[in-house]
Amino acid sequence: MAWQALTPPGEDFSKWYNEVVYRADLADQSPVRGSIIVKPYGYELWENIKAGLDRRFKATGHQNAYFPLFIPESFLKREAEHVEGFSPELAVVTIGGGKVLEEPYIVRPTSETIIMDAFHNWIQSYRDLPLLLNQWANVVRWEMRTRPFLRTLEFLWQEGHTAHATFEEAEAETLQMLDVYADFAVNDGAIPVIKGRKSDQERFAGALHTYTIEAMMGDKRALQSGTSHNLGQNFAKAFDIQYLDRNNERQYCWTTSWGLSWRILGGVVMTHGDDKGLRLPPKLAPYQVVIVPIFKNDDEQGVVIETATRISRELASSGIRVHLDKREDLSPGFKYNYWELRGVPVRVEVGPKDIEKGSVVAARRDIPGRDGKQFLSQENLAAQLSALLDEIQTNMLRQATEFRDANLHDVKNYDELKQVVQQGGFARGWWAGSPDDEAHIKGETSATHRCFPFDQPDGTGACLFTGKPADKIAIFAKAY
Amino acid sequence: MAWQALTPPGEDFSKWYNEVVYRADLADQSPVRGSIIVKPYGYELWENIKAGLDRRFKATGHQNAYFPLFIPESFLKREAEHVEGFSPELAVVTIGGGKVLEEPYIVRPTSETIIMDAFHNWIQSYRDLPLLLNQWANVVRWEMRTRPFLRTLEFLWQEGHTAHATFEEAEAETLQMLDVYADFAVNDGAIPVIKGRKSDQERFAGALHTYTIEAMMGDKRALQSGTSHNLGQNFAKAFDIQYLDRNNERQYCWTTSWGLSWRILGGVVMTHGDDKGLRLPPKLAPYQVVIVPIFKNDDEQGVVIETATRISRELASSGIRVHLDKREDLSPGFKYNYWELRGVPVRVEVGPKDIEKGSVVAARRDIPGRDGKQFLSQENLAAQLSALLDEIQTNMLRQATEFRDANLHDVKNYDELKQVVQQGGFARGWWAGSPDDEAHIKGETSATHRCFPFDQPDGTGACLFTGKPADKIAIFAKAY
Repeated sequence: MAWQALTPPGEDFSKWYNEVVYRADLADQSPVRGSIIVKPYGYELWENIKAGLDRRFKATGHQNAYFPLFIPESFLKREAEHVEGFSPELAVVTIGGGKVLEEPYIVRPTSETIIMDAFHNWIQSYRDLPLLLNQWANVVRWEMRTRPFLRTLEFLWQEGHTAHATFEEAEAETLQMLDVYADFAVNDGAIPVIKGRKSDQERFAGALHTYTIEAMMGDKRALQSGTSHNLGQNFAKAFDIQYLDRNNERQYCWTTSWGLSWRILGGVVMTHGDDKGLRLPPKLAPYQVVIVPIFKNDDEQGVVIETATRISRELASSGIRVHLDKREDLSPGFKYNYWELRGVPVRVEVGPKDIEKGSVVAARRDIPGRDGKQFLSQENLAAQLSALLDEIQTNMLRQATEFRDANLHDVKNYDELKQVVQQGGFARGWWAGSPDDEAHIKGETSATHRCFPFDQPDGTGACLFTGKPADKIAIFAKAY
Repeated sequence: MAWQALTPPGEDFSKWYNEVVYRADLADQSPVRGSIIVKPYGYELWENIKAGLDRRFKATGHQNAYFPLFIPESFLKREAEHVEGFSPELAVVTIGGGKVLEEPYIVRPTSETIIMDAFHNWIQSYRDLPLLLNQWANVVRWEMRTRPFLRTLEFLWQEGHTAHATFEEAEAETLQMLDVYADFAVNDGAIPVIKGRKSDQERFAGALHTYTIEAMMGDKRALQSGTSHNLGQNFAKAFDIQYLDRNNERQYCWTTSWGLSWRILGGVVMTHGDDKGLRLPPKLAPYQVVIVPIFKNDDEQGVVIETATRISRELASSGIRVHLDKREDLSPGFKYNYWELRGVPVRVEVGPKDIEKGSVVAARRDIPGRDGKQFLSQENLAAQLSALLDEIQTNMLRQATEFRDANLHDVKNYDELKQVVQQGGFARGWWAGSPDDEAHIKGETSATHRCFPFDQPDGTGACLFTGKPADKIAIFAKAY
């Protein structure tokens, strides 16, 4: 088999991204416009993402449930902003069991409406609060321009939906779940993120506040990686979700929702990938270690495969996700490229000389070439590799953070903003502009208001666009 | 809160089933006709079912993937029997993004067609075989008469899809996966099942052979609990799935599919439930142990809650799924009923006297009343409870098997079959009838041909319906 080099990410990032996604077996194109097939390697990565999030959701008191795929059309119309936001993107079922339906069903673009209807039925008193649910599901949004994982017609995600007695509790939940997302992105995904609040223009349709985690991709664009919404009483009023408080008085609930999709998988690819392909953080990698046996003849093959098999079993029993690549018709060099493309954090090479010396060669994916190679004793190998995987996880976060920080620039005026956007990167500066000003910037530079970061300087300054006094800084960038 | 008794299952099994499903918080009705909301308790039960199956799928070499929800209408039409079987049940998306679609999309009723199209692209040579995939997904079938979990418009399931070089390999896979289902049903679900082959009438639309596991529910009806299909070359020819064999000649693949849905959750309810509600096998129960603290005043409350909390932590750290019911406004008696309804296998009672004696009371859900109660020392409690949970798991399987065997009757002729069907139970006898004969029996008795069980007697006999020589026995029963 011949090996074809990837388009270098520096040359055409978008082309590089598509090549990596398809050639590293994360996904395949499908005959359904804008929908992808997630192949086993990509799906296992998604399963690891799910597990990391699900554990955190349960640790913060949430339970999973499952609501219908179909939503009666009338439900979507009950919250005015919500229906306006989603109408252009809907897939509509008009025929069921061979008959035209009296009321069409919408394939859920998100489940606020059908879940809020259930909350209306389930919540009677303050004793029923807070109600903390999450759903893992597929949703459909009729996007016109799609890209694998980043924007697809159908996508897999989770959506949390909670109800609370007070604004303060709802706000605390909204922020807690943003922290959960950030903790996952940083510690499992090795993706540094900026937590912040969306501008009114970028709010979720029907929300009071939308909070976001924003990450910088390898091409210096922003990726909105997860959002958490304080929905105020908008949905509670639209769906009549009331509870009796301790004084036996009826009150409307305060609700939240928060969602993170397989877009984060695209974020992992675009944060860490390089000219050889994927680089997966050890905590999420389907295989953390791949073993490549090296031999020249049948005699060598026997002893090498025997040792490699023993090592593979030892690592697996220590909880390391390991794969032994025993394919016979492929050269070691081919296998190195193959697994580098697929981003396996550590490659272990086992050859006759290693067996003589009781060692193996471990090659790190995060440090290219000789610098990333070292001999490890076969004795106590699992513990050494576990430590190495931890080091790689930490190093990948450091690399990504340094890259992000080097491309995050403070700007004082619109010219500086334009310059940053043109050269690539995040532009951060004082902001007191209007929605129209945001639209103007977007029209001229393609950059959007990403967020008002939580991390704010003291004092005030002059708005980078209007020059008016501003008490908050904002970040602008081109985004996915 | 008042406690309302369930309708006894012996009085109206169907009504009892619905009451248990809704009152034990497994599911709720939804505003979407025939679709249910799976509540957290039911969803956790489903998650445990998924985990038990997924582990077995992976152990037999299968990988998970994810294919689009929507299927182009033309795909479904490629396999003649398949489209004929599913057409009456389809939900059709005709509008997307505000426009009428040129080609409507079908919401998948099953994914053979879209997955076989991918197999066509992925399989080139014998080296690509076998291809062993599984998908966890939601599917939609426009059923007219629905019942929670047993028959719903949308349901969650898994569908395995595999491709092989030969008929023999495909047949071995089909049978292996039936064994996997049976192993799961028996060992995790404590549901005894009969493995067998479906008659031609009851085959999957497009299959060569369909194998099934059939279980007997508490009302002596049959539940088809999982099916595995050898699809022969039907789909391979419809979707042009060919491979180059070792002689470099093009051959059509042989494919299989196998599916099990949340219907099995209904099977758990109907196999084990009693007049107090659910009885969950320990391996699947969301909570294996519930701790109910007992106290009469604040002093007692303090020490009891302290001990109960310590015990709860110890059990959790030993891997037991435990819940401490600390609710303050409810009596112990209310809590007993509450958790019996929800089928928790073991209730642990902790009161002041227990604390004095260093013991607890453990009450088994599988043995009612005093006979199921025993004192256990607080010392080494986790190990004692683990052993008790194993015993309960075994006992529930034994109870269900005895019930099934007591209601499985050998019949020699149609009169005996009718009598068995009327009194409730499985009728087993020699069968050489035609599809028309099956239809006749179904019309007169509502009983259907469940399967030709794998477990066959030696020799031959006279067909129970036609009197003709028969070389196989079959099982007839009313079924869900």
